[in-house]
Amino acid sequence: MMRVVHKVWLDRGGKAFGDGPCDLLKGIEQTGSLHQAAADMGMSYSKAWRLIQTMEKRLGFALIERRIGGVSGGGSQTTSKAKTFMRRYEKFRAEVKDLTERTYQKHFGSVRLNH
Amino acid sequence: MMRVVHKVWLDRGGKAFGDGPCDLLKGIEQTGSLHQAAADMGMSYSKAWRLIQTMEKRLGFALIERRIGGVSGGGSQTTSKAKTFMRRYEKFRAEVKDLTERTYQKHFGSVRLNH
Repeated sequence: MMRVVHKVWLDRGGKAFGDGPCDLLKGIEQTGSLHQAAADMGMSYSKAWRLIQTMEKRLGFALIERRIGGVSGGGSQTTSKAKTFMRRYEKFRAEVKDLTERTYQKHFGSVRLNH
Repeated sequence: MMRVVHKVWLDRGGKAFGDGPCDLLKGIEQTGSLHQAAADMGMSYSKAWRLIQTMEKRLGFALIERRIGGVSGGGSQTTSKAKTFMRRYEKFRAEVKDLTERTYQKHFGSVRLNH
């Protein structure tokens, strides 16, 4: 069975956003913690932190903000700008994935290969 | 300036076809020589040969055939199946590229970033 594979990301003077960063931010939204989100992805805290820093620099806006104190002892949360950007990226991503698959089917759906 | 980057390839038990292989085959079509086509891409002959072998195995059909003797002393040429597959891939590739760019513009064309 032949299939199409595709990768897509946003570039702004280097890789600025993509599936991995989006997943990390979603983890932060869900857990309220960069530590936890990184651990859930099998990523070291320092690597996750550097990734966020690099994306923020390239995109030009803050992606996460610290929550100080409180019952949970603080943590991180995505900024409102990050949330808007993530939702936009997720729609874009789903649409590109769907169009790539449809275009593949259009051109290669009828191709029969041996063995 | 933010932009979208994307990569796409065909998989069949591993990478079976993509932009690099297609460029190599186009070079063979134009030069009639795997040696020359590989050199023009800055690729070693052995690497180009292994690439063709791997693709042929995964796709299940021959991509190039030897031309024995003649005025030019032989060489390689793409098979008719390869030509059909290449033209199909090129149309698919151009369409995916165009759709990805359009989808990016649709979702991110109006986004204004700082600095």
